[in-house]
Amino acid sequence: MSSDSISSDRGKSTRGAPTIRDVARLAGVSIGTVSKAMNNSGSLRKETRERVVEVAAALGFRPNDLAQSLHRGQSFTVGLISNDSFGRFTMPIVEGLEAVLAARRIAVFMCNATDDAELERQHVEQLMGKRVDGLVFTARRADRRPHIDLGVAGVPTVYVFAQSDDPNALALVPDDEGGSRLATEHLISLGRKRLAHITGPEHFEAVRLRRDGYRRALTDAGLPVIDRFYKPGDWSEAYGRQAVADLFSDDGEKPDGLVCGNDQIARGAADALHDLEIDVPGEVSIVGFDNWEVIAGAARPPLTSIDLNLRELGAEAGRSLIRMIDGEKLGGVHRLPCSLVLRASSDPNTKN
Amino acid sequence: MSSDSISSDRGKSTRGAPTIRDVARLAGVSIGTVSKAMNNSGSLRKETRERVVEVAAALGFRPNDLAQSLHRGQSFTVGLISNDSFGRFTMPIVEGLEAVLAARRIAVFMCNATDDAELERQHVEQLMGKRVDGLVFTARRADRRPHIDLGVAGVPTVYVFAQSDDPNALALVPDDEGGSRLATEHLISLGRKRLAHITGPEHFEAVRLRRDGYRRALTDAGLPVIDRFYKPGDWSEAYGRQAVADLFSDDGEKPDGLVCGNDQIARGAADALHDLEIDVPGEVSIVGFDNWEVIAGAARPPLTSIDLNLRELGAEAGRSLIRMIDGEKLGGVHRLPCSLVLRASSDPNTKN
Repeated sequence: MSSDSISSDRGKSTRGAPTIRDVARLAGVSIGTVSKAMNNSGSLRKETRERVVEVAAALGFRPNDLAQSLHRGQSFTVGLISNDSFGRFTMPIVEGLEAVLAARRIAVFMCNATDDAELERQHVEQLMGKRVDGLVFTARRADRRPHIDLGVAGVPTVYVFAQSDDPNALALVPDDEGGSRLATEHLISLGRKRLAHITGPEHFEAVRLRRDGYRRALTDAGLPVIDRFYKPGDWSEAYGRQAVADLFSDDGEKPDGLVCGNDQIARGAADALHDLEIDVPGEVSIVGFDNWEVIAGAARPPLTSIDLNLRELGAEAGRSLIRMIDGEKLGGVHRLPCSLVLRASSDPNTKN
Repeated sequence: MSSDSISSDRGKSTRGAPTIRDVARLAGVSIGTVSKAMNNSGSLRKETRERVVEVAAALGFRPNDLAQSLHRGQSFTVGLISNDSFGRFTMPIVEGLEAVLAARRIAVFMCNATDDAELERQHVEQLMGKRVDGLVFTARRADRRPHIDLGVAGVPTVYVFAQSDDPNALALVPDDEGGSRLATEHLISLGRKRLAHITGPEHFEAVRLRRDGYRRALTDAGLPVIDRFYKPGDWSEAYGRQAVADLFSDDGEKPDGLVCGNDQIARGAADALHDLEIDVPGEVSIVGFDNWEVIAGAARPPLTSIDLNLRELGAEAGRSLIRMIDGEKLGGVHRLPCSLVLRASSDPNTKN
């Protein structure tokens, strides 16, 4: 392949884009000279280089990133493969990632595999063919997944809100146990002593980690861990309502605080307590999880919630990938801190 | 730039990927011959071509899409620029778009401009530098926006869930008026005669179009258009509750059906009627808009809603872009049909 074949092919392209050949003709130099001038390579007389750059600018000729990346052996692109079909968890992650990479002029290929291993393999194959400088995998949930076989041509890879079964792979996930501990300690700090935990199905690692955080916080505070106050189920408002019906119907001791596994469960719980004419937060304090504004903000009362800081998780994935592309070796599972966002549902002393 | 420089640059690349030079050495041919064999170009003896392909396969050598695209003058990439920071409206659109393009082995660069014109210009510049074959613009709302100046190097461009001020540009948006007419006619078909419309702020084109659809459906059915039953405001549950308080507090005639501008308004309206002990759908029927499962499905009762068919909108954008890349001229604003999704909130004869 010669510069000539490149430029003539470019000339053939249907877009009105000026070609390297146009620049050469107007500058009165060879195509090779234009290539040297634009890539700042080879030995050229200063005036020649300047004339070429001038003409190129005048024509609006864009030095072709494709050709340049062949010179650099870097494509300034990374691939993002999501198994969440770009859902509400991946969205903020993707935003944080894209912002960090865009600042480095690295463009992101997005591919949606939605739990289809064969489709995922095709995406990886295609991305490798495009010589991406790195890969990011994200998923609907942060559980462990089979690692990606990148064959001979491995590239820096980051799993974010996802984990790999390869212990050496870099994985960034929220600190679910720490977040749940934060929620529980918040209710304890408000004087709540009988805390229930209504959450999702236990086959989610996040559910098991949040349960542990809730129990440890109670134990550390010298409060009882009451088995019937731990209610795994599912992630819906309907389940939140049902769990409250269970907890508050029987004659036994009633909770005075609810640590919920997500904002939908918390919202359902708040509605059910409203129907039972139990005041939130006056009689029962509630903390949600995810800090999903559209649910937490619209609930009555609005929900204090745990924020997973997903945008920062994505930004950190971007920064880590850049370090790996620059040659650093990174690996292991890193759990990034969650934070507590106060609204009206937890503190009995706030007036809604 | 010669094949030699390409291969040696590839050789320099830090990844273990086999290079065109490796293939040439093992096949005992020149790099130019490998290039011809892999690109099926030039005149080669059949045995030679076969030997090269064999060796390449054995080495796991990927014919480099970058180099190939220089030959084809096509990059098999398109750029997607979102001003919705990848929100819940753009995500299904992106999914539909990506699925259609992936089937054609066209990869999607995603860029997030979030209403920052300068950032958008940088993204476009960068994407043009990567010689994308097409561009897709999407936004938080389907209103008209300044068209993108692609300079000399214009490429096929589609606006989806967005419009351009360039009348020749292709724009795909949902048929908001038709969707609102669908919702209104549904309530009329259930025997409702005093229909109110609670919706978002009028500076949204969608709000004005949905208002028109609501009014036309009433007029066509010979039902009165009551001014105080039209309540533009904002998109929140809180506003839905407030609007119901207004409509049902005074002594005037009360609505027996609510056409709501989105599911959050509809959900707030349902909660407010519940608090007023007015039965939904027994006494008042409600239809939402957007068919956002997490809101419509969790509402009490679950909401009948209008689906914007965003995934199909994205798929159609992908199909249109491919036709334009293949040389067809497409343009104008196309409004794709919405559909009615039945849940419990509208039909007084269904039991929840």
